[in-house]
Amino acid sequence: MNNNWPFKTPGIPDDMFIRGSVPMTKEEVRALAMSKARLTSGQTVWDVGAGTGSLSIEAALQVPKGKVYAIERVSEGIKLIKQNKEKFSLDNIEIVYGSAPEVLSNLPNPDRVFIGGSGGHLKEILQLLAQKLLPLGRIIIMAITLETPAQAVEILQALKFKIEISQFFVARAVGINNLHLMKGLNPVYIITAEKGGN
Amino acid sequence: MNNNWPFKTPGIPDDMFIRGSVPMTKEEVRALAMSKARLTSGQTVWDVGAGTGSLSIEAALQVPKGKVYAIERVSEGIKLIKQNKEKFSLDNIEIVYGSAPEVLSNLPNPDRVFIGGSGGHLKEILQLLAQKLLPLGRIIIMAITLETPAQAVEILQALKFKIEISQFFVARAVGINNLHLMKGLNPVYIITAEKGGN
Amino acid sequence: MNNNWPFKTPGIPDDMFIRGSVPMTKEEVRALAMSKARLTSGQTVWDVGAGTGSLSIEAALQVPKGKVYAIERVSEGIKLIKQNKEKFSLDNIEIVYGSAPEVLSNLPNPDRVFIGGSGGHLKEILQLLAQKLLPLGRIIIMAITLETPAQAVEILQALKFKIEISQFFVARAVGINNLHLMKGLNPVYIITAEKGGN
Amino acid sequence: MNNNWPFKTPGIPDDMFIRGSVPMTKEEVRALAMSKARLTSGQTVWDVGAGTGSLSIEAALQVPKGKVYAIERVSEGIKLIKQNKEKFSLDNIEIVYGSAPEVLSNLPNPDRVFIGGSGGHLKEILQLLAQKLLPLGRIIIMAITLETPAQAVEILQALKFKIEISQFFVARAVGINNLHLMKGLNPVYIITAEKGGN
Repeated sequence: MNNNWPFKTPGIPDDMFIRGSVPMTKEEVRALAMSKARLTSGQTVWDVGAGTGSLSIEAALQVPKGKVYAIERVSEGIKLIKQNKEKFSLDNIEIVYGSAPEVLSNLPNPDRVFIGGSGGHLKEILQLLAQKLLPLGRIIIMAITLETPAQAVEILQALKFKIEISQFFVARAVGINNLHLMKGLNPVYIITAEKGGN
Repeated sequence: MNNNWPFKTPGIPDDMFIRGSVPMTKEEVRALAMSKARLTSGQTVWDVGAGTGSLSIEAALQVPKGKVYAIERVSEGIKLIKQNKEKFSLDNIEIVYGSAPEVLSNLPNPDRVFIGGSGGHLKEILQLLAQKLLPLGRIIIMAITLETPAQAVEILQALKFKIEISQFFVARAVGINNLHLMKGLNPVYIITAEKGGN
Repeated sequence: MNNNWPFKTPGIPDDMFIRGSVPMTKEEVRALAMSKARLTSGQTVWDVGAGTGSLSIEAALQVPKGKVYAIERVSEGIKLIKQNKEKFSLDNIEIVYGSAPEVLSNLPNPDRVFIGGSGGHLKEILQLLAQKLLPLGRIIIMAITLETPAQAVEILQALKFKIEISQFFVARAVGINNLHLMKGLNPVYIITAEKGGN
Repeated sequence: MNNNWPFKTPGIPDDMFIRGSVPMTKEEVRALAMSKARLTSGQTVWDVGAGTGSLSIEAALQVPKGKVYAIERVSEGIKLIKQNKEKFSLDNIEIVYGSAPEVLSNLPNPDRVFIGGSGGHLKEILQLLAQKLLPLGRIIIMAITLETPAQAVEILQALKFKIEISQFFVARAVGINNLHLMKGLNPVYIITAEKGGN
C-alpha cells in the first residue's frame, strides 16, 4: 500500500501533485484513462509526453510488479516527474528524458501506452507502436485539440488497430455565495486502440 | 485475480454484464464513481439501489478482503445481481432484498456508500448515513435528474458533510460509413460527500 | 436596420459589447435564449438582472416596435447598459435601476421575461410574474448554478407554468501552434416557462 | 409575418416540421446555426444537404427579400422540403434536386451557405465556395462525426477563410415520475468560415 495514496482506485486529486507550470491531466480524465487502459500487475507501461508524471504515478500504482516508463522531452517536466515519483515513493517508474519516437526504440516492449502529448510526431509514434506493442496491448490517446482525434483515428485504422473513441465534458462545482457554480473544463477525447492477439 | 475481469482498474465494459431491462450505470460513469469513492482492500461498501449490480461488482473487485452489500428493492434487479455476482465469481457481495433506508439499519457500518437510486427516500437514507457512515467515510451519489443534485447537496450540507460535485457529459463513437458518429449519453452528476474524522 | 449590428439573427459577438468586470451571457447562450423566447415585433420584454445589457440589446433588436425594460440593481451594470444601448443606437430600451421584484410592479405587463439573475428573489419574482405575465407569455431563466434549475422548476410547476428545460455545454476553439484547442465554457441551463392562454 | 411561425427568432420546435425518416437538425442547433450565419434581408442562401429543409425554412424566414436554395440529392428529402415549404407558406425557397458540387455551379453566388451534409464531397464544395461565395460571405458547417471538423478546418485554412469553431453538447429534460431526466443529444460542431472583403 502506498503511504501517500492508500487507495486502490485511480483518480488522485489534482492538488496532490507537484505541478509547476506544466499542464496536467485532470483527475477525472486520469481515472478514465486508467480505466480504458485496463491495467494489471506486471504490465510494462509507457507514458509518452508524461508532463508532470501524473499518469505515470497512477499507472505505477496499478502495476506494482510492472514498470512505467515516463517519457518527457522538456526538462521542467523531468524535474516534476522526479519530485512526484519521490512524493509517492514509487520505485517502478523509470524516467526517460528525450523525444518520442527516438527514445522509445530501446525500451522494453509495452503492454500499455499512454499518449498525452506527441510533440507533433503522432504518426511516427503510432507506427513504432504497431511494431513494439505486445499482443492485445492497448494505447490510450488523450486529445484536447480538434485535429488530433481525427488524425489519430486515421493512422490507427490504417495500422489495423481496433479502436474505441469517447469524448468527455466535465464540469466541477465551485462554491459561491451558498450556491454551487458549475465550471466547465476543456472537453477531452480518449481514443483507445487495441492490438490483435497473436 | 478475477477470471472474468483480470484487470485492476474499474470500468468493465457494459456488455460484460447481464442486464435484462434494468437501466445500468455506464462503464465510464462506473469508473468515475469508483475513483471518487477511493476504495481499498478491507472496506465495507453499500450499494444502494444496486440495479444490475454493476457498481457492486466493480467495488467488490477493489475491496477483496472487504464486503459489498448490494441493496435492491426490485426482484428483477435481485435476480440480475445474483447472475452477475456468479458471472464474476465474487464471494464478497451480499445481496440485500428490500427498500432503503429500512433494510440498511442492520447492516455493518460502511466505509463507502454508492447511491444510484433512492426510491424517493434520499433524505432518510442520508440522515441514516450521517449516523452509520464510519469516520472519513465517503458517499457517492450518481444523479441523472435535474432535481436530485440540488436536493442531495442541500441535505448533505445540512448534515455537515464535506461535498464535491462534478457533472459528466460523455459521447461515444459509433462507426458509420467509414466515419465515426459521436453519440451523446445522458449527462450524469456525481456528488461525493465525505464525513469528518473522529 | 441597426448600424452596429446589421443582421436580423441574434448572437452578437461578445467583444462588441462594453463589458467592464460584470459577467456577461455568452453569445451562443444569448442566441439560444432569444430562440427559446420566441420574440416578435411589438412585444414588451423584461430583462431581470440585465448585467451589461447584452440580452436587452439582442431582444430590443427583435422587438423594434416593442419595448425592453432592462432591470439592474448594481450601478456599474446600469452604466454599462447605458453605454451599450448608446453603442447600438437603440431607443426601445428603458433602463430600470433597482431590485426585483420591487421595481417590477409598476412596469407594463410583459410578453416575455428574461431572468439572468434574481438576487436571491427568484420565488418572489416568479410569483409576481404568475400575475403580470400576459397570456401565452414566456419566461426564460438562464442558470449557471447547481441549485437554481431545481428551484426554478419547483416554483414554476407550483405556479402551473408549462416548462421546458435544456442544458448547454459549449466549447470554443482557440488557435495554438497550428492546432485548435477546444476550451470549455461553463454549462448553462435554460428553463423556459409558458403561461396558459386566457 | 409568417402564419405558421409568427416569431422573428429562429429555433422552430422540431415537431412543427414534417420529418419522415430523414434526420433533422435539432431546434437548438438550428438557432445556433442561424446565429453564426448572421442573416439579414435580401441575402442569397444555399442550404447544401437540406434534408427535411428545416434550416432552409429558418433561413427563408430571416431573408424575406432574399432567396434560399435548398439542395438535396435524396428524393425523400426533396418531398419533405416541398411539404415543409408549403406548411410554412414560404415562396423564397427554391428546391434544387441533385448532388453538390455539380448542381451548385449554376446557382446565383451566395452570401451565406449552410452545409449540413456534403455526401463525401466537402473538399470540392468548399473549393467551389472559395470562388462563388460573395465577399464577407459566411459558410456554416454542422458536423456530427469525429472526422468532419478536422477535415473542414484543414480545407478552410488552405483556402484562406477566417474560421471559428464551437462544439455544442445539448441535453433536454423529459418528465418522468415528477422528476426531470436530462437526455443527452449528440454533440455537434459548428464551424463558421468567413471570406475576406474585396
